[in-house]
Amino acid sequence: MKIGVLSRESGVPLSTVKYYLREGLLPPGRLTNRNQAEYDETHLARLDLIRALRDVGGLSIAAVRDVASAIDDRSPDRRHPLDLAFDAMYPHREPEPDQREAYAVAEQDVRAFLAGLPWTVAGDDARYVREALTDALVRIRRFLWPECSVALFESYARASWWISDVESAAIEAAVGFDSVRSGGTAAVRESVLGSVLFEPVLLALRGHAHRSRTVRQAMGEPIPPATLD
Amino acid sequence: MKIGVLSRESGVPLSTVKYYLREGLLPPGRLTNRNQAEYDETHLARLDLIRALRDVGGLSIAAVRDVASAIDDRSPDRRHPLDLAFDAMYPHREPEPDQREAYAVAEQDVRAFLAGLPWTVAGDDARYVREALTDALVRIRRFLWPECSVALFESYARASWWISDVESAAIEAAVGFDSVRSGGTAAVRESVLGSVLFEPVLLALRGHAHRSRTVRQAMGEPIPPATLD
Repeated sequence: MKIGVLSRESGVPLSTVKYYLREGLLPPGRLTNRNQAEYDETHLARLDLIRALRDVGGLSIAAVRDVASAIDDRSPDRRHPLDLAFDAMYPHREPEPDQREAYAVAEQDVRAFLAGLPWTVAGDDARYVREALTDALVRIRRFLWPECSVALFESYARASWWISDVESAAIEAAVGFDSVRSGGTAAVRESVLGSVLFEPVLLALRGHAHRSRTVRQAMGEPIPPATLD
Repeated sequence: MKIGVLSRESGVPLSTVKYYLREGLLPPGRLTNRNQAEYDETHLARLDLIRALRDVGGLSIAAVRDVASAIDDRSPDRRHPLDLAFDAMYPHREPEPDQREAYAVAEQDVRAFLAGLPWTVAGDDARYVREALTDALVRIRRFLWPECSVALFESYARASWWISDVESAAIEAAVGFDSVRSGGTAAVRESVLGSVLFEPVLLALRGHAHRSRTVRQAMGEPIPPATLD
């Protein structure tokens, strides 16, 4: 298809498509003569991904370019595109100046905790999860439970692994296992969108569970058991 | 204790303590003479709650006053203070104008879904969870899976109930079952803080689970099973 059709089919304005081409987010089309190029379904899929990363994931143009390059990179030691996308979605945060000591202590706890998880990949840095958990542990100790042990995170890890199992199955059903494994365009797009769009579902239902539990206790109503298989 | 001691012990500036008294967030002390009042541990606990609701929960002064009144209200048909706190933390959002139809369809699905949950209290409106889930479903259908069924939320509900079970046990161990059941000051404070402060733990570990799963698949490493009991 010509660039005008690509713009119309994707819903992305022509000037934006040209901008993505210039910035290297979108691979060039196949030249049919000196001034004209042909685009295909892979360009449409790539535009879908760019919009997802930009509009829903909130990624910068530079971060989208990194993710796109990782998708096209076939070298064995490349970073997984999804990893780059998550890194960009959770930017690095510095601890507040008066919290540096508490932060250092919490960080050691979190490193040990992450290393002990059955699914952590050995030698993997996992920067963003380490920073997010350390930040959370510092705040929990500061505002709620000064003696809070990182072992309390175990249950969250088990629930998270369980829910990621369900989510992966849904994404594999939608785009195919091979696409997920190879970090293909559609798989990265669906994983990023799934991660962001289902986040409020988990949080709202956790709030609802607490609220219903409290109301049931106050009314003397039975509390259904909590089991997952 | 005198008001100056209350301010020092709580870490809340004297002018702020006086402001909370004027606004009715803090109950008056016991008058010992015309110009002096005595304060006790209940005032300290209330100041702790106010700071948690304000600084961590982000509640307005008016919302904090409502929560505080609900704690002091002993009538049988009062709203549970925690319910008021959650309502204030998740303000009402209007659907975007071009999404009103999709929103109405999604809302019907979400109402049926919530009514079918084993732990929903019959006749309970649950405004904030309904709005949050409807909003999420509209966005999922718009950006990810146009045919997405609300049944996909089942797994999130099960994981949420499971994690709320763990969290309730931790809060009951910290403040006592009777305080939780009666919606006492400490129980409301710990529930609000726990809800907000542990949120990023769940989200970061969910992200980590996906990332590790993807890296393991790409490397051909085994994927540990997902079980919760």
